Amino acid sequence: MRIYDIIDKKRHGLKLSRAEIEFVISSYMKNETADYQVASLLMAICINSMDEEETSDLTRAMIESGEVLDLSCLGEHTVDKHSTGGIGDKTTLIVAPIVASLGCTVAKMSGRGLGFTGGTVDKLESIDGFKTELEPNEFLDMAREAGLVVVGQSANLVPADKKLYALRDVTATIESIPLIASSIMSKKIASGSKSIVLDVKVGSGAFMKTVEGAKALAQAMIKIGKSFDRRVTCVISDMNVPLGYAVGNSVELWEAIEVLSGRGEYNLYQLCLTVSSSMVSSCLNIDYNEAKARVIDAILSGKALAKFYEWIEKQGGDVSKIQPSSKLLSAKFKREIISESDGYISSLDAQKIGVASMSLGAGRVRKEDKIDHLAGIILNKSYGDYIKRGEVIATMYASNESLFDDASKIFTEAISLSENEPEKKALIYEIIK
Amino acid sequence: MRIYDIIDKKRHGLKLSRAEIEFVISSYMKNETADYQVASLLMAICINSMDEEETSDLTRAMIESGEVLDLSCLGEHTVDKHSTGGIGDKTTLIVAPIVASLGCTVAKMSGRGLGFTGGTVDKLESIDGFKTELEPNEFLDMAREAGLVVVGQSANLVPADKKLYALRDVTATIESIPLIASSIMSKKIASGSKSIVLDVKVGSGAFMKTVEGAKALAQAMIKIGKSFDRRVTCVISDMNVPLGYAVGNSVELWEAIEVLSGRGEYNLYQLCLTVSSSMVSSCLNIDYNEAKARVIDAILSGKALAKFYEWIEKQGGDVSKIQPSSKLLSAKFKREIISESDGYISSLDAQKIGVASMSLGAGRVRKEDKIDHLAGIILNKSYGDYIKRGEVIATMYASNESLFDDASKIFTEAISLSENEPEKKALIYEIIK
Repeated sequence: MRIYDIIDKKRHGLKLSRAEIEFVISSYMKNETADYQVASLLMAICINSMDEEETSDLTRAMIESGEVLDLSCLGEHTVDKHSTGGIGDKTTLIVAPIVASLGCTVAKMSGRGLGFTGGTVDKLESIDGFKTELEPNEFLDMAREAGLVVVGQSANLVPADKKLYALRDVTATIESIPLIASSIMSKKIASGSKSIVLDVKVGSGAFMKTVEGAKALAQAMIKIGKSFDRRVTCVISDMNVPLGYAVGNSVELWEAIEVLSGRGEYNLYQLCLTVSSSMVSSCLNIDYNEAKARVIDAILSGKALAKFYEWIEKQGGDVSKIQPSSKLLSAKFKREIISESDGYISSLDAQKIGVASMSLGAGRVRKEDKIDHLAGIILNKSYGDYIKRGEVIATMYASNESLFDDASKIFTEAISLSENEPEKKALIYEIIK
Repeated sequence: MRIYDIIDKKRHGLKLSRAEIEFVISSYMKNETADYQVASLLMAICINSMDEEETSDLTRAMIESGEVLDLSCLGEHTVDKHSTGGIGDKTTLIVAPIVASLGCTVAKMSGRGLGFTGGTVDKLESIDGFKTELEPNEFLDMAREAGLVVVGQSANLVPADKKLYALRDVTATIESIPLIASSIMSKKIASGSKSIVLDVKVGSGAFMKTVEGAKALAQAMIKIGKSFDRRVTCVISDMNVPLGYAVGNSVELWEAIEVLSGRGEYNLYQLCLTVSSSMVSSCLNIDYNEAKARVIDAILSGKALAKFYEWIEKQGGDVSKIQPSSKLLSAKFKREIISESDGYISSLDAQKIGVASMSLGAGRVRKEDKIDHLAGIILNKSYGDYIKRGEVIATMYASNESLFDDASKIFTEAISLSENEPEKKALIYEIIK
């Protein structure tokens, strides 16, 4: 088998066999196939695509490049969730304790943030003492005892995805349904949970710019799930504006506690309700509306919040500073952004707000960068709200005052006002399974 | 300007600007753009193609990567030819002295052979003393005095093509009209001649497998020529069977002298007539039939042969062993291939015969390999000929008898016999300008 012939085949739009796909991944991982050959193949895949079987074969080959988590000792009710990346997306911090309080087991690996999108692990690390690296037996013990554990992603989980993703990132080959689907699903399947809920984002700051694209991606992932005997549910949701009011790390943690306490921004609450109801429904194999009723009860009764604190303490976190209604945990300096005119907020570009937050120190430009857990932005107003001249739109937090000028400039570019009330956008477009 | 955005643009089938194409080539030559990024772009070009303007811009950017020959001191009647690669293609050795004897100036850089295709420079180096490396002033002096000089291609002529070609060769991105056209034309334009005749081959051993493909390539090259103010003529000719009877180096030189002496195989003679008439017609700006009459006269009168010896002597070659009708200059050992049955030769695969000749020592597998100038094959019969059991099909020459077994095995695979006379194939499909 020669890589040249495989590239040439895909170049001409032909279907690759399972053996050919396995050869590509295994020879690339052994450095027997060069980056430039894989880059050429990836471009051919981007343009000529792959069918369902090829996508599933690629997912399998990627999974086999590393270790696979065996969660069978945790029983049948394991559930995982994943979001395709968003600004202000603290959903995991909220839905994980909700579903764990209802008898589902969440034994989850989560990522760090890069670029303008944040990562759950970074948000958790803003809690003093919280451990995001655990030994395999500790990880399983915690999942068994609390029904909930979240750690950083193991370097050995789907190493082929890391290598391919790094190459795709510099060769304009990110945007491709079979490649995105196999990248996400290989990690979810290798992570071992039986039920998987995927929050597929649509909008300016997301992989998928259109609802149609997001639906196609969702369908591809559901099909991969089927071929690996996993129950996959996709929630297609909007990511044109940030989710909730907080963007950063400790500030997002604070907002998560608000939602678990029954408060919090409407859209964020709705999304958490939808994702957690989908998780409970899939995991316990019950009707969606029944699952939703249990989720609402878990929040209102305080069960979900109690589970949250149990979990944080079990993983070593100091919960004294993050009690409900305690003071916002934030950086030393703050600056308010004041509106210079009257009007409705007619656009609030999620990606730019992510960049503004990153420039305050809350995000990484390069993987090796350190982040400032206490930096971030709290929005006072959101999309569609009316604001008067002189009112505060948002407050920025940073450990270094010199960062405010740049960040407020970026923030100002993210926002625009209009005389007329803008059209309300849907938050949840569809649930597919 | 970012390479990522340029790749992404071509990925989506959009047109690249001149500045973007220049950026790709210049940053690649400075190693600021990586192989894998260019590989990804090349694949996008292969699939989504490039228009006339982009192809011309790419040609210009490649030319500007190296030195450009200025032949203006040689007057208006400079003419170059190029063949897209063939087996047994000794055309240059024949047409160059013909057209030089008629007042055209051929100041030519030529390539070495690689793989199963031979190179003019290797064929010339089978003559004792022949120098294929000259100082620039020697090169121009010889062109001025004899009207004819052929040297090896300067390493500094279109270095971008060398780098791109090496990458295309391992990433399945050879086959692409804009890439092939710009590769060939950048070298021809940088070589300085005003008129250019291109022999575009069609067949199993050629870039282009169909006449339609070859025509499209020809048209692309003619358009590039126009945008650089060069007169380009394309001869579309068949390369399913070897050209002439000899395949190798010294044996092909011998056959060239046969043709210049008014003898030689019919197809080879026809092709040389067509190519040299096209060269004379374009270069002297005269009617094709008038040019053809002069070409025939040059051969029959002995003017072309005299020009051949004048040229070889001027470049230092010892002509004593290569006089007309002198003994074939060949390697020490020979072996005949005998037909095992009766029939018409219904296929004679050019590529396989090239491989057989290479395995006798007449070609290179890698660029750095040495070749045996005296090795090769002389066919006794060609496509369509009738052969009886026991008759000699071909004679192989090698400096090492152990090479014959493999070579005759490959040769035997190249040939097949049929009971009925096979359809005669056209040699020249079309002349386009």
